[in-house]
Amino acid sequence: MKTRKHDLIVVGGGAGGTATALRAAQLGGKVALIEKNHLGGFCMNRGCIPFSHMAIASDYLHKISTLAREMGIEAGSPKLNLSVLNRRQDELIKGMREGIRGLLTKSSVNLISGDAQFVEPHTVIVAGQEFTAENIVIAIGSKWASPRFEGRFRDRVFDGDYVLSLRKVSETLLIYSDNPFSLQAAQFLARNGATVYLVTTKRRLLYWESKTISSRITKILREQGIHVLTGTSVASCANKRNGLEVTVVSNGKEKAIVVDKLIYMKKVADFEELGLDRIGLQADDYLKVNERMETSVRGVYAVGDVAAPEQLHYSHLASAGGLVAAQNCMGRTSYLDHRSLPRILYTTPQIACIGLSPKDAKARGYKILTGMAPLNMNPFGMIMFQVYGLIELIADKDYGEILGINMIGDEVCEMAGEAVLAIQLEATVDDLASALFPHPTLSESLSEAARDCLGATLYIPQSG
Amino acid sequence: MKTRKHDLIVVGGGAGGTATALRAAQLGGKVALIEKNHLGGFCMNRGCIPFSHMAIASDYLHKISTLAREMGIEAGSPKLNLSVLNRRQDELIKGMREGIRGLLTKSSVNLISGDAQFVEPHTVIVAGQEFTAENIVIAIGSKWASPRFEGRFRDRVFDGDYVLSLRKVSETLLIYSDNPFSLQAAQFLARNGATVYLVTTKRRLLYWESKTISSRITKILREQGIHVLTGTSVASCANKRNGLEVTVVSNGKEKAIVVDKLIYMKKVADFEELGLDRIGLQADDYLKVNERMETSVRGVYAVGDVAAPEQLHYSHLASAGGLVAAQNCMGRTSYLDHRSLPRILYTTPQIACIGLSPKDAKARGYKILTGMAPLNMNPFGMIMFQVYGLIELIADKDYGEILGINMIGDEVCEMAGEAVLAIQLEATVDDLASALFPHPTLSESLSEAARDCLGATLYIPQSG
Repeated sequence: MKTRKHDLIVVGGGAGGTATALRAAQLGGKVALIEKNHLGGFCMNRGCIPFSHMAIASDYLHKISTLAREMGIEAGSPKLNLSVLNRRQDELIKGMREGIRGLLTKSSVNLISGDAQFVEPHTVIVAGQEFTAENIVIAIGSKWASPRFEGRFRDRVFDGDYVLSLRKVSETLLIYSDNPFSLQAAQFLARNGATVYLVTTKRRLLYWESKTISSRITKILREQGIHVLTGTSVASCANKRNGLEVTVVSNGKEKAIVVDKLIYMKKVADFEELGLDRIGLQADDYLKVNERMETSVRGVYAVGDVAAPEQLHYSHLASAGGLVAAQNCMGRTSYLDHRSLPRILYTTPQIACIGLSPKDAKARGYKILTGMAPLNMNPFGMIMFQVYGLIELIADKDYGEILGINMIGDEVCEMAGEAVLAIQLEATVDDLASALFPHPTLSESLSEAARDCLGATLYIPQSG
Repeated sequence: MKTRKHDLIVVGGGAGGTATALRAAQLGGKVALIEKNHLGGFCMNRGCIPFSHMAIASDYLHKISTLAREMGIEAGSPKLNLSVLNRRQDELIKGMREGIRGLLTKSSVNLISGDAQFVEPHTVIVAGQEFTAENIVIAIGSKWASPRFEGRFRDRVFDGDYVLSLRKVSETLLIYSDNPFSLQAAQFLARNGATVYLVTTKRRLLYWESKTISSRITKILREQGIHVLTGTSVASCANKRNGLEVTVVSNGKEKAIVVDKLIYMKKVADFEELGLDRIGLQADDYLKVNERMETSVRGVYAVGDVAAPEQLHYSHLASAGGLVAAQNCMGRTSYLDHRSLPRILYTTPQIACIGLSPKDAKARGYKILTGMAPLNMNPFGMIMFQVYGLIELIADKDYGEILGINMIGDEVCEMAGEAVLAIQLEATVDDLASALFPHPTLSESLSEAARDCLGATLYIPQSG
């Protein structure tokens, strides 16, 4: 067997793997990228891209019936034609996949199709062919976990893919998930006619985020008619004549809910066939890496979903990790700084959380200042009907440094960039309080939240 | 005549005057605010608030027929009911005015209704009553200029207010303006059925901005059916049987255009009755101030439109200036830093320019790097159909400091906040290139534009 040598082998062609390969090639490396399925990975093919596409359509549907109607736009009773939506989604994904292929090819990355298995830390085997490199980056991503309930539930239990290929929604659906995508899915299904139960085992939705954000989005989902059940687990499922009988348990009490289908949305790392044991790597849910993206095995790196817990399966974390890994593999010194990592959701309204929640900041020993600016008191927020919109700001009491920014409202996914820069560039509350944000925008409320931290709001009452 | 004494007198209750009064009161000052008309000033009553409200409605109307339809949303042939829109606009403005009145009252600002005239630098007279203070802040704002054409044109020539109280649009309209609002007005009128000529005396639309932005928006307006005539002035108007005959001159050549109405949109400072000559202040178009917002007369400050050229009539500049003036008047030392001033427009797509254009940067002696990232190559841009979207970045070649960020695309008015912070916090291209912007968002293209500056794009071809 002839062994092919590269400077770097990347296993997985999603956001993390692609970024790694492109950056390493840019730095002059001879790179191989191994992908067993479609380029683009989970995010592009089944995750953030189709889910945000769906959510944007869902948001327009909502806006046409609410804000646009209030503004005088007469558009009848708008309906979403799911086959048109799904066709556009598939075309977008196809185009993006081809784009990634073109980029990798143009960068002379050696594209290899198939399953990779470790032989030893510097060697993998794909379809009988050995590949060797000084460094190997594991970027195999994640997949929907298979449901493991007791009982019979054939043709009644699905994973998140179900949401992306709907033809018709007039059912009762139970989404069982602690994953952030489940909120977007619940809104999309409800807005298109489904009766939706959203069931999470945790005490609250988005349990790792600020309580302010969790409680606002839960209230919004409930007002939109979604049955949110927290602290609840599914004990068993049984096919019955009238549907799927789901037995849920909450506070030790059992209850039966009859639905048409159950959607189980849990993402797990996809490393089953990689043979990690052969190189002495152990992983429970995900691979542990240092800030250089190195695993405990010299020369083996990991980036993206495979190296992060489920609530941090963000492709921007994957690609940022990929750049860091590539740079380190190519002889530079590079670190990933998580402090400014944004967690965003295209719900209606959108959610964007950056940095620490008040609780996390306190847990790390900070004395904190908090500031709030409700978007319904912001002039542009009034135009945009931001009833529940809010910006929450957390700062270090001693130095005024911004530690966290949590936002709920329209367009906060783009505003997230402001929060990312504020934290990355170590802005203080004084910096934000005096920033020249344009009028009329929601961003202005960042200044007001900063002034609230300082006890000196100008246009809204002081909080707390 | 009894004279009433205050620490600070603010003349004008718009964005600049309100910010000045609220901040000075917050710092313990005894403040009088004099307003001859409605609180909220031009921006709230006739400017950015109603114009952006109108533009947002216009944008929804556009999106329902384009992006939403492509996504499968079936909403018939949407129409905008102008009386509903105008009623919502009036209610919003009324609510905001009441909000401002409440804030000022709660802050114990002495609200005085009437025309203020200077007696001497520390004294003004309002309806026969004298008011005196150590410092006076002029914040009288701007108004639409009256047209001064030759010829007869009764009932055929209007100012920008015309756009905000439309009942029906099925006319041929000529907008004569160098003002940025004219672009929003043109789109709104065209989208609601008017045939629109947009006539500017300057070589290009938004002549003070980057050429990249000017040329893109001009192309977009033309594709939307708007007749853009640059380098063209109106020589005369004449009422004819079939309408208003407007004689325009371009490159020395005259041409007649027959329209139903001409809308003349030029803003001028509103200081006619203030009696500036009595305190030795001279003003051509606007009052010159230093970075502490002081005029050449000790104790007399000026903020907002009255202290800025027409293309910088932004209420966030007014309120920022107001805060600076208030702080200086109350014994602190405060400066206004213009570098990060955003210029935004709610056109479709939106425009946001922050810092220097390439030409201005060169004129100031910088050696520059420029970077471009087209939004139609950004994944979220593909979802959002950002055909003409673009981010242009200008950086100092020696130190990598970001000097300017120019953007055209959906939601760039909120993204403007990122650019404001980048410039305010003196971010470098390396900072932006490695920023953890969330995926999928348009903001990611800021990183790509930064990488383009560095000659190292990852996901798009290198520009230039």
